[in-house]
Amino acid sequence: MKDNRLRTLWQQDRPAVNAWLSLRDGFAAELMAHQGFDALTVDLQHGLADTHTMLPLLQAIAATPTVPVVRVPWLEAGVLMRVLDAGALGVICPMVNTREEAQRFVAWTTYAPRGTRSYGPLRAKLVHGDDYATAADAAIVRFAMIETAQALDHLDAILSVEGLDAIYIGPSDLSLALGCKPAFDSVEPKVAEAIAHILARAQAHNVVAGIHNGSAAGARARAAMGFRFVTAVADAQLLAAGAQAVLAAMRA
Amino acid sequence: MKDNRLRTLWQQDRPAVNAWLSLRDGFAAELMAHQGFDALTVDLQHGLADTHTMLPLLQAIAATPTVPVVRVPWLEAGVLMRVLDAGALGVICPMVNTREEAQRFVAWTTYAPRGTRSYGPLRAKLVHGDDYATAADAAIVRFAMIETAQALDHLDAILSVEGLDAIYIGPSDLSLALGCKPAFDSVEPKVAEAIAHILARAQAHNVVAGIHNGSAAGARARAAMGFRFVTAVADAQLLAAGAQAVLAAMRA
Amino acid sequence: MKDNRLRTLWQQDRPAVNAWLSLRDGFAAELMAHQGFDALTVDLQHGLADTHTMLPLLQAIAATPTVPVVRVPWLEAGVLMRVLDAGALGVICPMVNTREEAQRFVAWTTYAPRGTRSYGPLRAKLVHGDDYATAADAAIVRFAMIETAQALDHLDAILSVEGLDAIYIGPSDLSLALGCKPAFDSVEPKVAEAIAHILARAQAHNVVAGIHNGSAAGARARAAMGFRFVTAVADAQLLAAGAQAVLAAMRA
Amino acid sequence: MKDNRLRTLWQQDRPAVNAWLSLRDGFAAELMAHQGFDALTVDLQHGLADTHTMLPLLQAIAATPTVPVVRVPWLEAGVLMRVLDAGALGVICPMVNTREEAQRFVAWTTYAPRGTRSYGPLRAKLVHGDDYATAADAAIVRFAMIETAQALDHLDAILSVEGLDAIYIGPSDLSLALGCKPAFDSVEPKVAEAIAHILARAQAHNVVAGIHNGSAAGARARAAMGFRFVTAVADAQLLAAGAQAVLAAMRA
Amino acid sequence: MKDNRLRTLWQQDRPAVNAWLSLRDGFAAELMAHQGFDALTVDLQHGLADTHTMLPLLQAIAATPTVPVVRVPWLEAGVLMRVLDAGALGVICPMVNTREEAQRFVAWTTYAPRGTRSYGPLRAKLVHGDDYATAADAAIVRFAMIETAQALDHLDAILSVEGLDAIYIGPSDLSLALGCKPAFDSVEPKVAEAIAHILARAQAHNVVAGIHNGSAAGARARAAMGFRFVTAVADAQLLAAGAQAVLAAMRA
Amino acid sequence: MKDNRLRTLWQQDRPAVNAWLSLRDGFAAELMAHQGFDALTVDLQHGLADTHTMLPLLQAIAATPTVPVVRVPWLEAGVLMRVLDAGALGVICPMVNTREEAQRFVAWTTYAPRGTRSYGPLRAKLVHGDDYATAADAAIVRFAMIETAQALDHLDAILSVEGLDAIYIGPSDLSLALGCKPAFDSVEPKVAEAIAHILARAQAHNVVAGIHNGSAAGARARAAMGFRFVTAVADAQLLAAGAQAVLAAMRA
Repeated sequence: MKDNRLRTLWQQDRPAVNAWLSLRDGFAAELMAHQGFDALTVDLQHGLADTHTMLPLLQAIAATPTVPVVRVPWLEAGVLMRVLDAGALGVICPMVNTREEAQRFVAWTTYAPRGTRSYGPLRAKLVHGDDYATAADAAIVRFAMIETAQALDHLDAILSVEGLDAIYIGPSDLSLALGCKPAFDSVEPKVAEAIAHILARAQAHNVVAGIHNGSAAGARARAAMGFRFVTAVADAQLLAAGAQAVLAAMRA
Repeated sequence: MKDNRLRTLWQQDRPAVNAWLSLRDGFAAELMAHQGFDALTVDLQHGLADTHTMLPLLQAIAATPTVPVVRVPWLEAGVLMRVLDAGALGVICPMVNTREEAQRFVAWTTYAPRGTRSYGPLRAKLVHGDDYATAADAAIVRFAMIETAQALDHLDAILSVEGLDAIYIGPSDLSLALGCKPAFDSVEPKVAEAIAHILARAQAHNVVAGIHNGSAAGARARAAMGFRFVTAVADAQLLAAGAQAVLAAMRA
Repeated sequence: MKDNRLRTLWQQDRPAVNAWLSLRDGFAAELMAHQGFDALTVDLQHGLADTHTMLPLLQAIAATPTVPVVRVPWLEAGVLMRVLDAGALGVICPMVNTREEAQRFVAWTTYAPRGTRSYGPLRAKLVHGDDYATAADAAIVRFAMIETAQALDHLDAILSVEGLDAIYIGPSDLSLALGCKPAFDSVEPKVAEAIAHILARAQAHNVVAGIHNGSAAGARARAAMGFRFVTAVADAQLLAAGAQAVLAAMRA
Repeated sequence: MKDNRLRTLWQQDRPAVNAWLSLRDGFAAELMAHQGFDALTVDLQHGLADTHTMLPLLQAIAATPTVPVVRVPWLEAGVLMRVLDAGALGVICPMVNTREEAQRFVAWTTYAPRGTRSYGPLRAKLVHGDDYATAADAAIVRFAMIETAQALDHLDAILSVEGLDAIYIGPSDLSLALGCKPAFDSVEPKVAEAIAHILARAQAHNVVAGIHNGSAAGARARAAMGFRFVTAVADAQLLAAGAQAVLAAMRA
Repeated sequence: MKDNRLRTLWQQDRPAVNAWLSLRDGFAAELMAHQGFDALTVDLQHGLADTHTMLPLLQAIAATPTVPVVRVPWLEAGVLMRVLDAGALGVICPMVNTREEAQRFVAWTTYAPRGTRSYGPLRAKLVHGDDYATAADAAIVRFAMIETAQALDHLDAILSVEGLDAIYIGPSDLSLALGCKPAFDSVEPKVAEAIAHILARAQAHNVVAGIHNGSAAGARARAAMGFRFVTAVADAQLLAAGAQAVLAAMRA
Repeated sequence: MKDNRLRTLWQQDRPAVNAWLSLRDGFAAELMAHQGFDALTVDLQHGLADTHTMLPLLQAIAATPTVPVVRVPWLEAGVLMRVLDAGALGVICPMVNTREEAQRFVAWTTYAPRGTRSYGPLRAKLVHGDDYATAADAAIVRFAMIETAQALDHLDAILSVEGLDAIYIGPSDLSLALGCKPAFDSVEPKVAEAIAHILARAQAHNVVAGIHNGSAAGARARAAMGFRFVTAVADAQLLAAGAQAVLAAMRA
């Protein structure tokens, strides 16, 4: 099994640039995969893909060096295991709010006897190699999303869970949780403070910090702060923003 | 965000006529949507659709004034949120049996800080408008199904949960729960009594009552009783009953 | 290879009752197949199915005694052969206008050396038996649609093509061709006359005559005239007419 | 049947701004449809969509005022008729090279007795209205692509075919045909000359001229020249160009 | 409702030979179904199928006497009920670790008042008969997977749950749980001992024992031991092993 | 654009070992692609794939060095161009019977001004490189199938068409054409003679000869004769033969 490029970047203290796949179209994924992002995240939570369409997206990415990451809809064993079996090398779990939830997340993504992931990596073994059974636990990156008031309350307890590699901040949900309007880059001060706090605590625990952004500028600023997994853009956003720019130019 | 037509009808004390989509065919949904039902319910529980095929069905409905409703397979956070992100304006949750379950249902379908629905309404925002984040909580209709013995035991506790807009009765499951044969319109007396009881308690709590029926006659009778969301027919039923009538006529 | 039930019915001079699949939903097809029609026709011309979705429809029919028929979009070799490879036991070709077109139709659906159908009946052999290569030519039923002014001009030339088993009348196109409004059952006199003429000539050539109808009553009347393959209804029609009846009853 | 908005724009001598759907994703189409283009063209020739995936794309567009156009893969009767049955209000046919080909194109998209389009507009009638049979011929817009040396030789013969509403220039193929490199906006002089010539001849014949462009600037320039159907952008192009811009910004 | 062939075999103390469907291709399933296995198991856990693609696989099997079994991804009510509604006659639940989990599994697959399965067997009733509501509970076979250390600890408690028809051993997960390498047939002694123990306890409780194997030889050996549901091969394995044999022969 | 590995093998006078994809499952294709065949052929003629499902199959192959080839259903411009746009590096056309047909085949797969292939290689350019427009004509391999009596009559005329790279023999169709039973490896003498003749004439014209076989032994024998593109097996065949072997072993 090859080294997970995310881990390689992090060993070099370099941020991984991630893009978001909200569409569920295999060719859109292939097109995005050929652009050169460090990672692409298939979003099964708020995106359109599901366990059915995830497969061709992961296959499309596989012809490139881009690392395939999947965000699951919820902390559920069945989908977490399917996502890894399908070959994801990173998995993002939304709304991890307590130490116990973080432990379940790690356990469900780690083989026995250390965890309780069920064995049967049909595609993962095909594409990642015959040593998958022994190498997967260490290769896969587990991101717990920190985006609720409850998670802030249990932050250190979550961050200290063994096997949790990274956290990922959803600024929109975090904003709502703190009584603010959902936003990505230009969050309200209370949210900005929370983000800085989460980053600092993650760094203190040697846990990689990632965050969702709404623009390249936002992502760069976050990387400069110390985030090491920065989502810079989503495919659906490229379509909408690009189309609006074209129409504006046509009607100017 | 436009007013949810279900709420408008209810403000006028008029029953909403609903039809059931058990098939998962986009054109069948479009055909049904053009007939003029007040609502169409995509059934992810006992119907054939799933989170994958739900999307084209909701898109097909979107060209008409019909309100898109989805029944989820079970009280699970992931699917509830996906259904709303996809643009459903009503959501029916099966087998809500306790106050705590009703509370979870409401929380998962309501944004923070009041609830815990995660933010990311990709399609919902596109089709319902840019104010979705602030308007969705009040616009969406939440139906808890009352269809078990346990739910009957906790009826008032469930009905008094803040944010629960409506209940929906499944006469077949309710019949089984009471030791009777599954039926829609012609339920056994014990079941009829339970239905009347549920309706009365819902009205007492100012919660809209809905019910599944097997025919237009059944639905009309339920509307006359006071039900304000009456399912009159299912697409699969139209196919089977219609085909049988044609064959009977051919062979007469 | 079992006897084609269409041929069995015709040997007994009995009409085959056919229903039309305009939807492309596998479960709708299965539902229709369990009702007891003699044949179901997957419509690749004006229906929604295509060479992709045809397969699950044919698989759904295969669990029942109903004969699977497919109407191709046009007189094209590629699609005719795919339809037969997929296991269709009858094939309807639209707008066969000349003797030469009828000959091509027969040739493309008949193996060499008599015809030019290419060999590779992957699914057909699996479900119809190992003798498919030798038995298929005689088992398959070929329907040429007679529905244009040109076809009327070449009627006897078409009907005398060896290997053409049957014709199928599309009353709507025939109506348009004769300057009338499209209709199924209640065609204008000029069209009625043409239909009777086609039937008489088909009978004279010992070619089975089939026709599209809009109702059981229409189909029965055609069967009484001598048609031996009568389409009585379409799935999409069942949905629309059924839904309209329910809504009318609700709003009465 | 409502007026075709393309014809309305042209009566006002205004250019229709078109965007190109190369992806085959229903949500991408819906996203594009909500941006406000006058038309969206589903490309069955060089795009990824096919007769199977065309349907959800057309359904997604149907909730907006955008005019649905389809480019067929080739001058073939079967696909032309399917595209119209599915509700397209404009159809672009590639590589129409002779008067006879243009005549076939018009005939296959026009009902008898004037043409030979077969009747069965299942979805088209549902979404465009019950008068579709009589109104469709006049409502639909037929674009013949002029993009080969042969077509240039037969330009006036093609443009004078009755019922041909519009032509559409593919600058890339035209460039190759004239021995130049494929390009959209910055074509070589020989190609620019041919484009101007085609436009002038189209105007002389009262045939609307459309053209494919690679940018809003290119489309505006073409509109200023007199083109009345200008493609300004493609969805796949938005993804690729947008992603490249984001990555460039990240790595600056 | 016909007798479940699995129960018939077991009444005769004969082992059922099962094959595994890891692919999600309808034709691959049909091809496998025509070979004559006693049962085919659609794997929603480690296989590629999901609730979307499960349907055409089950339809493909339905034309043959092969018993359709489904393994669900996890002990979740929603998917268990969907699988049965879709017509599965056997259901395998992974990682059943405690008596309470086994009870939930049985309850969710049994109608009220004995269990809590929700009623709505759309396809199951169509294909299995109108008495499905009363006959299903007794006809369906429920397999709890015993494959963790925790399950070994609670073995008798699990096996004594009323309504649990069978257990199924996953030798790979069991191996990992016991600190060994994942394997099917040639398990390490500690695992072999555990397997023999599980079999003995199942027999003592009159619960049918099933097991996953990697070859016909392995399956035969397990059947000889007393296992009565033996998986002999998986479709994906046939492809890989067969292709490797062909390539080895080509390159010899 | 990288060198087409088929051409590299042929320059070294080595046979390319091809396997056939009759299924239309993306994972089956990926599994086959990782085994190490020189080429995989997606069969749109007698296989289950179509222009819709071809795309994920080609994407699955793209992560490996295996050369993607597609057999089209028929000599039709639209599908030939779609197949190449999708990234196929080889294309097999069935039943090429005359010099004129071979010329059309070559023209439709070659850009202007030498041919008439329309330009728009969306995916082909993405995966094969920005020089696709200029490099594709020389890189793509065009196989004309020789499998009819008519083709035998015009053999030299076909083989001398400029730009035709290869021929491919379908022994089954050739057998039928010569009045024999369809077979792959053990053809009747008359067919064996025809095969040898075709090979000899192809070699005389410096046209690569390929052939379909039913086994590795058959393919090796053909390679020894001088065939340089030998299909050794099909995925569906691996499933059926493998399953039969397992069942035979179980029931021995």
